[in-house]
Amino acid sequence: MPTFFSNHISQSTIILDENDSRHAIKSLRLKSKDQINIIDGRGTLYTTEIIDNNPKKTIVTILNKKSFKADIPLQLAFCPTKNNDKNELVVEKAVEIGVTKIFPVFSQNSERRKWNSQRMEKICISALKQSGRYWLPEIHQSCSFTDFITSKHSEKNFIAHCKDAPKKALSNVVDSSKNQLILIGPEGDFTVEEIKLALKNNFCAVDLGNNRLRTETACLVALALMKNT
Amino acid sequence: MPTFFSNHISQSTIILDENDSRHAIKSLRLKSKDQINIIDGRGTLYTTEIIDNNPKKTIVTILNKKSFKADIPLQLAFCPTKNNDKNELVVEKAVEIGVTKIFPVFSQNSERRKWNSQRMEKICISALKQSGRYWLPEIHQSCSFTDFITSKHSEKNFIAHCKDAPKKALSNVVDSSKNQLILIGPEGDFTVEEIKLALKNNFCAVDLGNNRLRTETACLVALALMKNT
Repeated sequence: MPTFFSNHISQSTIILDENDSRHAIKSLRLKSKDQINIIDGRGTLYTTEIIDNNPKKTIVTILNKKSFKADIPLQLAFCPTKNNDKNELVVEKAVEIGVTKIFPVFSQNSERRKWNSQRMEKICISALKQSGRYWLPEIHQSCSFTDFITSKHSEKNFIAHCKDAPKKALSNVVDSSKNQLILIGPEGDFTVEEIKLALKNNFCAVDLGNNRLRTETACLVALALMKNT
Repeated sequence: MPTFFSNHISQSTIILDENDSRHAIKSLRLKSKDQINIIDGRGTLYTTEIIDNNPKKTIVTILNKKSFKADIPLQLAFCPTKNNDKNELVVEKAVEIGVTKIFPVFSQNSERRKWNSQRMEKICISALKQSGRYWLPEIHQSCSFTDFITSKHSEKNFIAHCKDAPKKALSNVVDSSKNQLILIGPEGDFTVEEIKLALKNNFCAVDLGNNRLRTETACLVALALMKNT
């Protein structure tokens, strides 16, 4: 049964937005009385039946609903790369793996200073449906390294960098039962001052193995380890 | 210092191919007496000096060489997805993470039956240079599921699938000190018969967590766990 996303949910009916209506009626050729799943991104899965197959504004009636508890927080903060396709890749794959919050952070060596939250939210919704999750991750607005690092975060905060300094292997310090956050740097890495500021603010310096990983690869490797070990 | 790849290495000199020569001389504007690093993909790093800055056939002399031991085998077999960009992504990221062999496998539900090894080898070389590794992973020709599963592989063989059947969490059975292989299925998953055949051939069935991962995401999550835990 196809799954759609909606945050326009009333007591008994749900209206699909124009894109989803077109997809349901034109592409999937669904008709009145066909059933579809709808998730609200806040932990509820609705089993519904189409009552008006309008291809611009499809209306369904709720047959059943089921609640799922929220995921343990798994937070990713990263410095967006110059190539925005790679940032979109990070968002899509991070959602599949199980991220719950994404923070774009601009550090001193960041080459990109633009972040389109709206576009990223769309990617996030699409990955959510694909991955069978029920809680929509939060995509934050961009902020500066200093503002980010000095605000309160989680129980376990990690910063991954490539400088020659004391670091722990991420796989040795992760704990998927805890609220965790990882901060991944830009291509030119964090500066020594930024790393110092992070350590002062309760971040633990980690590495992700011997190979030099691109920003987007580092994000996905870190999340895979934090989610699964 | 920029790093290049060459497998045309003599006792004292190395000739860069046409692409690399152009890149070195035209893009990076290197001149005679400039130094560059060259890797041969068989564990040796050469420190060299340009003696002929011909932009079509740059020649360098070897100043120094250093050998690195081979990585512990980390093998990925996967059913290529319909969208070839995603297959290229798998190869690039797998090399960064540390894969040593890649096998494209065509299973019953495979939607793609084409695999361009030559193109994938180029991506592999580029990712090798980027990630600072010294041993070039092997990219194999495609083969059928049955041929693949019945040939000899490694100490630890895993097959990831989404069917409801006894499985272990991959993170609980990985061991980065061992020769490991993971087999990832197509979008439509392996068939029950394929899974049975794998179990018979000494493969251990694993899952990669609760979320439904796309083929390319599953490849990268599995490799991240196998490499780092």
